[in-house]
Amino acid sequence: MTAAKVVAFGGGHGLSASLRALRHCAGDLDLDITAVVTVGDDGGSSGRLRAERGGLPPGDLRQALVALAGDHPATRRSAGLFQHRFAGDSGDGLAGHAVGNLVLCGLMEQLGDPVAALEHAGAMLGAVGRVLPMSRQPVGIEARVRGADPARPDEVRTVRGQHQVAVTTGRVESLRLTPTAPDACAEAVAAVGEADWLIFGPGSWYTSVLPHLLVPGLAAAIVASRARRLVTLNLAAEKETLGLSVADHLAALHSYLPQLTVDFVLADSKAVGDPEPAGRAAESLGARLVLAPVAVTDGSPRHDPAALGAALVPVLGADR
Amino acid sequence: MTAAKVVAFGGGHGLSASLRALRHCAGDLDLDITAVVTVGDDGGSSGRLRAERGGLPPGDLRQALVALAGDHPATRRSAGLFQHRFAGDSGDGLAGHAVGNLVLCGLMEQLGDPVAALEHAGAMLGAVGRVLPMSRQPVGIEARVRGADPARPDEVRTVRGQHQVAVTTGRVESLRLTPTAPDACAEAVAAVGEADWLIFGPGSWYTSVLPHLLVPGLAAAIVASRARRLVTLNLAAEKETLGLSVADHLAALHSYLPQLTVDFVLADSKAVGDPEPAGRAAESLGARLVLAPVAVTDGSPRHDPAALGAALVPVLGADR
Repeated sequence: MTAAKVVAFGGGHGLSASLRALRHCAGDLDLDITAVVTVGDDGGSSGRLRAERGGLPPGDLRQALVALAGDHPATRRSAGLFQHRFAGDSGDGLAGHAVGNLVLCGLMEQLGDPVAALEHAGAMLGAVGRVLPMSRQPVGIEARVRGADPARPDEVRTVRGQHQVAVTTGRVESLRLTPTAPDACAEAVAAVGEADWLIFGPGSWYTSVLPHLLVPGLAAAIVASRARRLVTLNLAAEKETLGLSVADHLAALHSYLPQLTVDFVLADSKAVGDPEPAGRAAESLGARLVLAPVAVTDGSPRHDPAALGAALVPVLGADR
Repeated sequence: MTAAKVVAFGGGHGLSASLRALRHCAGDLDLDITAVVTVGDDGGSSGRLRAERGGLPPGDLRQALVALAGDHPATRRSAGLFQHRFAGDSGDGLAGHAVGNLVLCGLMEQLGDPVAALEHAGAMLGAVGRVLPMSRQPVGIEARVRGADPARPDEVRTVRGQHQVAVTTGRVESLRLTPTAPDACAEAVAAVGEADWLIFGPGSWYTSVLPHLLVPGLAAAIVASRARRLVTLNLAAEKETLGLSVADHLAALHSYLPQLTVDFVLADSKAVGDPEPAGRAAESLGARLVLAPVAVTDGSPRHDPAALGAALVPVLGADR
C-alpha cells in the first residue's frame, strides 16, 4: 500500500501541533507529510531578518521543520540547536535570533532558493516530511478591523502586518495580502494536486490559516484537488478571533474560498461547547463534525499531539 | 591494520591546508585524524562573538571542521553553509558573521561544552576526523615585539591580541598567553598520548603554531608522547615572521619547548632556498629535512593539498 499523501496548511504553533499529531499516526497509518507554511511573519527574529536580509521570514518554516525532525539523538540535538535562541539585550545583533532562523537565512542566501534551502535544512534534521512555503515571496498581511481601538468600537480601520493583526482585539472584517495575488510556490501547488488529504488548522485563523486561501494559485489547486479536506479547530480563541464561534470560523473559510468543500471538522469535545450549532455549521459546508478530547490535560489551550494524533487515525484511516 | 593516529596542531588557513593534505593521503594510508586548534582569535567575526557571547572564538574551529567535511553532496552543502558569510555593512548585527561561527556559538551555548559542540558539528558535516580546542577557555596572545613601530626600530613594546601580533611587522622577541598557563583540553591531551604522529604547521608561527606549546598540559603530553613529529614549514613568511629563516622557525619551536624533538621537517623545494642551512637547522633538532614541491602552481604562497598530501604519504607511511 502506498503512503497517504497529507498536506497540512498553517504557520507557527498550530501547524507545529498538527505536524506532531500526524507523526503520532505513524504507528497506525503510512503518511507522506507535506507542510505548507504562511510567509507573512513580520515580528521578532523573523521580522528583523526579513527587514534586514530580505527573503522569507524563517520562523514559521523553522517550527515546521523542527516538528518533523527525526527521532535519532543527533537529529533531536540539531532540532534543539535550531530552536536555541541567543539571549541578550537588543544591543547585540544576535540577541533574540533562533539559530535555525539564521541557518535558514544563510541557506536561502547560499542556495538562492527557499525550496532548496528547506530541502537541505530538512535533511540536516532528518525530517520525516517536507516543508514548503506557500509562496517564494514574503507577503504582507492587512486587515480591516472594527473596534481595533477599544475606545471607538464602531470604527473600522486598516491594521497592517501579521503581528499587529494577530494581536488585535477588534473584529476582523476583511483580510488581504500584499501583494494581493502572490505567486504560489509551484512545489506546494503540485503537492496539493497529488494529495489524499488537505488539513487546515489549528492556528491563528486570519494570520496562519486563511492566508493560504488568498494565494490564487494555491486556492485554485485546493479547489481542484481530489483530496479529502479536514479542518482542525482551535481550542481557545486567539486574540484576533475573540468572540468568533465555530460557525464563524467555518464561515470565514467559506467566505475567502466559496468553492471550498470540507469533509471533516475536528474539534475538542470540551472546547466546542454545545455540539448542536457546531454540528450544523459543519454540515453547512458538507462536513461531519468529529469530537474528541485533543487538549493537553493541564487545562491550557494547547493540543496534545498524541491525543490529536489518536483522533486523526480513525478519520484519516477510514475508507473513502 | 589499525589506522595511524595523526594529531595536527595549528589554526586558520595553515591547519586547514594540513588537514586537507592528510585527507589526500587516504588513498594510500589509513589515518585517524584529530585537529587541535588554537583558541586565541580576537579579530573579525570570531572576535565579536567572543567579546559579545563569551565562549571560544569559533572561526579557526570552523575552518578545521570544514576542511574535514565529508564528500557527500549534502555534507559539502552543509560545509558551504558553514562558510557562508552574511554580507552587509556593520550596522547589521549579522554582517560579517560566517553561518558556521553562529552555529558553533549556538551549539556551545546549547550543549554547555565546546568539545560536545564540536563533536555534534562534526557529525553535521560528516567530518572524517575530529576537531578539538587546545583549551576549553579562550586565551589571549601577547608578544614583546622589537620595532613594532617602524619609526622606532629598536624599541621593544608589548603587542596584545592575536590579530595585532599576526600583523605586526616588528620582530617577535617573546610570546605569552593570558592566562599564562591555561588548562589543556583533556581530550586533546588524550589524543596526543595515543598519537602515532604529531604534525606542527604550516601556519602563522607565533599565533597558530607556538601557542600550543605554551599550554602546560599540552606541552607535557607532547614531550611524553611516543609519536613521531613532523614540522611542515610555511611557503612564505607571514608579516609576524618576516625575515625569519627556516632555522629561526625551528629555533622558535625549540625555544618554547626545549624538550621537543622533531623527526621530519617538510619544506617546499623552491621556498626553502639554499637547502644547506635548512638541512643543518633540521639536524640540530634531530630531524631529517624533506623537500618536495608542495605549493600551488600559480605562484601564490599557498600549499596545494594534493601536492602536500603526496609529499606526506612516503613520510607518514615509512616503517618506524
